[in-house]
Amino acid sequence: MDAAAIAELTAALGADRVSIAAEDLAAYAYDGSWMDSRPDLVVHPQTTEQIAAVLRIAEARRIPIVPRGAGTGLAGGSLPAAGSICLNLARMNRILEISAADTLAVVQPGVVTNDLQRAVERIGLFYPPDPASVYQSTMGGNVATNAGGPRCLKYGVTGDYVLGLEVVLAGGHVLRLGGRTIKDVAGYDLKRLFIGSEGTLGVVSQIIVRLIPKPAAQLTALAAFPRLADACQAVGAILQADVIPLVTELMDQGTMRAVEEFKRLGLPTEMEALLLVAVDGDAELVKREIAIVGEVLWRSGAAEVRQASSVAESEALWEARRSVSPAIARLARNKLGEDVTVPRSKVAEMVARLHEIGRANDLRVVVYGHIGDGNLHPTLLCDRRDPEVMQRVEKAAGELLMAAVELGGTLTGEHGIGIFKLDHVADALDPNALAWMAGVKALFDPHGIMNPGKKLPA
Amino acid sequence: MDAAAIAELTAALGADRVSIAAEDLAAYAYDGSWMDSRPDLVVHPQTTEQIAAVLRIAEARRIPIVPRGAGTGLAGGSLPAAGSICLNLARMNRILEISAADTLAVVQPGVVTNDLQRAVERIGLFYPPDPASVYQSTMGGNVATNAGGPRCLKYGVTGDYVLGLEVVLAGGHVLRLGGRTIKDVAGYDLKRLFIGSEGTLGVVSQIIVRLIPKPAAQLTALAAFPRLADACQAVGAILQADVIPLVTELMDQGTMRAVEEFKRLGLPTEMEALLLVAVDGDAELVKREIAIVGEVLWRSGAAEVRQASSVAESEALWEARRSVSPAIARLARNKLGEDVTVPRSKVAEMVARLHEIGRANDLRVVVYGHIGDGNLHPTLLCDRRDPEVMQRVEKAAGELLMAAVELGGTLTGEHGIGIFKLDHVADALDPNALAWMAGVKALFDPHGIMNPGKKLPA
Repeated sequence: MDAAAIAELTAALGADRVSIAAEDLAAYAYDGSWMDSRPDLVVHPQTTEQIAAVLRIAEARRIPIVPRGAGTGLAGGSLPAAGSICLNLARMNRILEISAADTLAVVQPGVVTNDLQRAVERIGLFYPPDPASVYQSTMGGNVATNAGGPRCLKYGVTGDYVLGLEVVLAGGHVLRLGGRTIKDVAGYDLKRLFIGSEGTLGVVSQIIVRLIPKPAAQLTALAAFPRLADACQAVGAILQADVIPLVTELMDQGTMRAVEEFKRLGLPTEMEALLLVAVDGDAELVKREIAIVGEVLWRSGAAEVRQASSVAESEALWEARRSVSPAIARLARNKLGEDVTVPRSKVAEMVARLHEIGRANDLRVVVYGHIGDGNLHPTLLCDRRDPEVMQRVEKAAGELLMAAVELGGTLTGEHGIGIFKLDHVADALDPNALAWMAGVKALFDPHGIMNPGKKLPA
Repeated sequence: MDAAAIAELTAALGADRVSIAAEDLAAYAYDGSWMDSRPDLVVHPQTTEQIAAVLRIAEARRIPIVPRGAGTGLAGGSLPAAGSICLNLARMNRILEISAADTLAVVQPGVVTNDLQRAVERIGLFYPPDPASVYQSTMGGNVATNAGGPRCLKYGVTGDYVLGLEVVLAGGHVLRLGGRTIKDVAGYDLKRLFIGSEGTLGVVSQIIVRLIPKPAAQLTALAAFPRLADACQAVGAILQADVIPLVTELMDQGTMRAVEEFKRLGLPTEMEALLLVAVDGDAELVKREIAIVGEVLWRSGAAEVRQASSVAESEALWEARRSVSPAIARLARNKLGEDVTVPRSKVAEMVARLHEIGRANDLRVVVYGHIGDGNLHPTLLCDRRDPEVMQRVEKAAGELLMAAVELGGTLTGEHGIGIFKLDHVADALDPNALAWMAGVKALFDPHGIMNPGKKLPA
């Protein structure tokens, strides 16, 4: 990066908010994927005005900007490109307001999601979105990916809680979108364009989120199914029994075996699937609901159902699910964690196709996911040092994405497109929709400096 | 409209789908507002392809298009302009699919909202959005205005249920946006641009909506408050008691008196406010919740609380609320029904300001609304034949809109901008946001044929 640009950024932000030392750059060269790539420079703005100053300078000099929260993204969305400025938002980590009267919170983008959750729960409120990265990932990153998690069937995704956004566009223009009310039809809903746009349209500098009363209780059941298809059917049957579950987590046999290899929990590894179901809400109601869930699970073909009657018992049932990620990580040197989503009725068929794709490409594929909203995380085990294996991984990944699209689903439910799925976007989206998405990109970022090479194919 | 254009439209659609007779045009000259304006021609497409054909011809000939559902809009959004084609979508009224397995429905834009509600309720499902016009208004119109209603605090607005849209742009380009899954972060969320855009960006030709299990029961309480501010505070107190009410309908003294003049229900017209609160869900839980609501209402300063312990008793309590519209309509020759929304904590202050604005302008103003989401419907009584009165009405309307904005609210919660509030948009929205909204309009409708003169100021 040329010296004049560095001098201008330093003058605008102060020397302590601009990093160019190699050891600093190295710390921002990775994300939650297996790629890495160093930025030329990292800036650490602490105000909207400082973000705007960076985006003014970057626009004038046509320097790419890569916004970054905690760097937990799994699709490469926050990976810096060579020649780029990494815009580190982690220092903008203040909760500016929690209003019990208006049941909302106003936060800076660098607030860690679980910090917000704990803060609002202290006063009896609840922020439901709960991506797996919740203890590290930031609210800005959650907005940028429209982060989901296991609770979406009942509570929706991050975007469903965003009432207002302040965003900064390339060139430093600040836009205030939405506000503090649930209903607002003055103007177009531009804020939704930014939610899930992975930093390619602008930088989120402030967020207003809706809160709800904290549910009083939560209970869990765990069922083992000889047939995976029955576990998938059970979720629909639970809804038909008028219970909207908080969580419906499927683990296939491969996932179960990985967990059992990691921790001896005594899981029934001869079964095809485990299904973890949780309900939340009124303390008395959840007791009745978890009993209904238990009955439905038996009726749906479960060979074993364990129901927690206390928080402690619920925690024990969660242990298998919580161990999935570290357990899978031990199975191979590398793993590709995928994120396909299909309509709920197609989950069983999709899991069968995922297993078939694994067999056909001679790869170990384990599958788990939030099946109430059709969101599956097939994980392909591999070794990145072996180019032949990686060729099969790439082929299998392409096949499983297209299988999801064929079944009426989507390439990504919650991880985003980033750089990893760019090649498949054109096969998945309507060509006219894609053309107007490119128009939106050009409207908000005419010189293409915002996180270039991500989200939309060139 | 020139003969060649009429011939081209007739050739594309068939003569029975093109109306030019004066008596036909007159039937499409009004909406739910007090304005009227005849289109030059009405087309009645029955397929997406026919909509596309109309929009191709209109684009080539630069003829304005005014999409229309049931014409129940209150802001003039579907009022035809002279020289325009009224695009009547009422014949596209088929429910294409109801999937219990995927808990969704696919509908054409002309489906009447309550027809969808009844169809899904027959199989135990629920489509929550419930605008007052639900027995007449169409799903396409509900999407175009992002229609709300009384249930939004608990269940959200129309847009929160839209999973996918098919839209047709000026020029006839068809875009398929979103799909059949709750989670989907492939591409930008363009569908949200169309939701609430009042037909100014394109025509919604197909809608996929999310459904939920139908709540088993609903119960209601009605409280009379000597002080209106206490009624407003009560809603926050209900939430703090961990009950998310289905409905929190406020009626001020003027509204109560209008209802009492219309029907002798024995309402306590010496009180400042009535508050109707309903809860829905599990049958046993709603009994406990309505008891909690009752306690909170007493504790909040109610002088009288009536609680329904059965569906029949609930219905009786609803009678006052259901009578509001016809009762107010009897008070004066004309009424201007407004639709401001403020943060929940500002509702009491906003109602006080509304009464003050009424007094200062020597106008009778009655106020009711969905106060859980801060949405108030102040109604200004007037006689349109008296220009002096109408001058005061216009002044008062401007003042009340600006009062909402000053309190952190918005010009319109659910009715839309249409043509009635155009003059106030620039005072309410961030100027940069407005500039990019104009850019979005130009991107999707470069020749400005889609419902011109609505939603955004020129």
